[in-house]
Amino acid sequence: MGYETILAERTGWTLHVTLHRLESRNAMNGAMVGELSAVFAEAAADDTLRAVVLRGAGGTFCAGGDLRDMGGGLGDDPAAGLAKVNRAFGALLEQAEALPQVLVAVVEGGAMGGGFGLVAVSDIAIASDTASFGLPEVKLGLVPAQIAPFVARRIGLPATRRLALTGGKLDGSQALALGLVHQIVPAGGLDAALTATLDQIRACAPKAVAATKRLLNRVGQEPTGALLDEAASLFAQAALGREAMKGIPAFLSKQPAPWAKGDA
Amino acid sequence: MGYETILAERTGWTLHVTLHRLESRNAMNGAMVGELSAVFAEAAADDTLRAVVLRGAGGTFCAGGDLRDMGGGLGDDPAAGLAKVNRAFGALLEQAEALPQVLVAVVEGGAMGGGFGLVAVSDIAIASDTASFGLPEVKLGLVPAQIAPFVARRIGLPATRRLALTGGKLDGSQALALGLVHQIVPAGGLDAALTATLDQIRACAPKAVAATKRLLNRVGQEPTGALLDEAASLFAQAALGREAMKGIPAFLSKQPAPWAKGDA
Amino acid sequence: MGYETILAERTGWTLHVTLHRLESRNAMNGAMVGELSAVFAEAAADDTLRAVVLRGAGGTFCAGGDLRDMGGGLGDDPAAGLAKVNRAFGALLEQAEALPQVLVAVVEGGAMGGGFGLVAVSDIAIASDTASFGLPEVKLGLVPAQIAPFVARRIGLPATRRLALTGGKLDGSQALALGLVHQIVPAGGLDAALTATLDQIRACAPKAVAATKRLLNRVGQEPTGALLDEAASLFAQAALGREAMKGIPAFLSKQPAPWAKGDA
Repeated sequence: MGYETILAERTGWTLHVTLHRLESRNAMNGAMVGELSAVFAEAAADDTLRAVVLRGAGGTFCAGGDLRDMGGGLGDDPAAGLAKVNRAFGALLEQAEALPQVLVAVVEGGAMGGGFGLVAVSDIAIASDTASFGLPEVKLGLVPAQIAPFVARRIGLPATRRLALTGGKLDGSQALALGLVHQIVPAGGLDAALTATLDQIRACAPKAVAATKRLLNRVGQEPTGALLDEAASLFAQAALGREAMKGIPAFLSKQPAPWAKGDA
Repeated sequence: MGYETILAERTGWTLHVTLHRLESRNAMNGAMVGELSAVFAEAAADDTLRAVVLRGAGGTFCAGGDLRDMGGGLGDDPAAGLAKVNRAFGALLEQAEALPQVLVAVVEGGAMGGGFGLVAVSDIAIASDTASFGLPEVKLGLVPAQIAPFVARRIGLPATRRLALTGGKLDGSQALALGLVHQIVPAGGLDAALTATLDQIRACAPKAVAATKRLLNRVGQEPTGALLDEAASLFAQAALGREAMKGIPAFLSKQPAPWAKGDA
Repeated sequence: MGYETILAERTGWTLHVTLHRLESRNAMNGAMVGELSAVFAEAAADDTLRAVVLRGAGGTFCAGGDLRDMGGGLGDDPAAGLAKVNRAFGALLEQAEALPQVLVAVVEGGAMGGGFGLVAVSDIAIASDTASFGLPEVKLGLVPAQIAPFVARRIGLPATRRLALTGGKLDGSQALALGLVHQIVPAGGLDAALTATLDQIRACAPKAVAATKRLLNRVGQEPTGALLDEAASLFAQAALGREAMKGIPAFLSKQPAPWAKGDA
């Protein structure tokens, strides 16, 4: 996998993706959006993968959109070109949110703008107590256009309004209180916390996890009754499937299920 | 009321419903879903009732769906049969949410799976500090299909994702922080807390409470403008009704309103 | 601006609006709804304004709807008349929420009923630690009809259900924990906190702020994909606009942007 802006390494059933543009504190440019999209597409198609872990290299998660990269190659219609580039980042967030695997964000240092957006679409976010999260766009005359809707779904509209309209920041404990991240650890403790999270994921049946995630991503997007109808089919499919056939007896006899043994 | 899986007892204007299958830690089976649905239907039609209190017998709220009961009597098309049984539980949650009375959940011990769902649709939840709340489904290869949408509405999508995708648990203070429950008390204090809650409910006009609850259940299900139009009619109806005719002068003269005197 | 129930004073790019009916603890009557609507309409049309600050006179924010004013002048069809008066207050909340400026609520004392609603639609709310917030309607036989939908969007449905169905109250720290307000300060510290907030707003580009707010007000009101498409156009427009043209180089060279210098 010859990527230029990210690293992607597989161990066991986990894919570790690292934002890696050290010269710009892992700022997001068009190449990075394209490479993340490619690596997520490959992950989505691989049903032997159970978790995708996203981090940043060099002690920073992601400095946000790369401002120096923004103006290049827009062609004859710069407005259409910029809108397209911007929308591609939103599509990446939608793609990350829809991954069948559990997406774990591990955050140290700053997660700004688009980096904040990536954290907001993770299933589980673990941050170092020195992490910070910001939406600086309006300070530059820009709009956190693709990011704010995902942030609002994650931390609620009231907190998003204050942050987005003042170009504000959250520290680790504010991010925890708002549900942006699920756990804060001392800077040296991120790897241990990730291992504990992967242990929890190991105990869970992969297809059931993927079906549950698909369901959760539809909450609030359609009427409750219709969602519950379809959820009932999902349930029946799972309950009659191979995982439940082994998982239920294992649970009742307090034995580990077959999937609970593999290496992360 | 000859129920097999629940107890239902009325005192004053309160209906006390107790999940009561001691042999299985009040696990939910088809009979319990049917009996809860019947008792809720009766309550919904009784405008002398002002509160429904839901608890579990024997120091546990509810262990979740009864796995031993799940496979029986599904007939020729097991997938259709299971989907129907599963959807019936979602319909029960919708019914509980729509009760015109205030639904108070009093939780001690575990509230797992479907038990978690019942807490999530209560208007007021009081828990002992030893309570715990979990969505273990994916550990068994199952999907928290009917439950997750209600949990997501209650505690938000981010917390629900982590819980549902890792088969995780919340203790009492985590449940309080996320808004799943409104109050945590020491194990011996549940009855006193319930009495205090019923005292608050006593001070509130029953028809106004029912109208307010109807309105709240529609928030987020339709466009704001349309909801506000209809809310205005609800307001006018209440303001010209018998309750307000007595309630407003009582409030202005600092006297108790007529409804504030009955026994809970 | 000859208002009877409010004061409106401009300093720099900030409009200070004060609810001012001392004889009734700033209770909301028809005149006040009309005057607030007029002053908000004027503000919305004035692109030299960047912030609107809303407070109450005499140590109270707003005691709620003026019950003594409610019955007057309803004409032949009291139900239609009351519904119209009630809906007008909801329209005022929608108007406040849609202001292109940052709406800052500064709360001391009680914010009851409609006063609670005004806080719920602010972008930033700062409260004194003696503030309290309540929805007493059902105690009087009334329904928090126009208010509850906005409160539910602000603090979530679970907390709103408990509050609205019990006629309950929140103190300052509860309001902070639920995200109703963003900051709690000692009673003497409100002015300093407001100044700090206006300093944050000063650093942000006014047109970018207005575009971001427009976008945020649509989150949850339409499908994510469609919202992101339109957000991409908003982004391109901002990125090619005059603010970004000056704001991006200023940011990259760590100089203040042109808009960061004016008096609040």
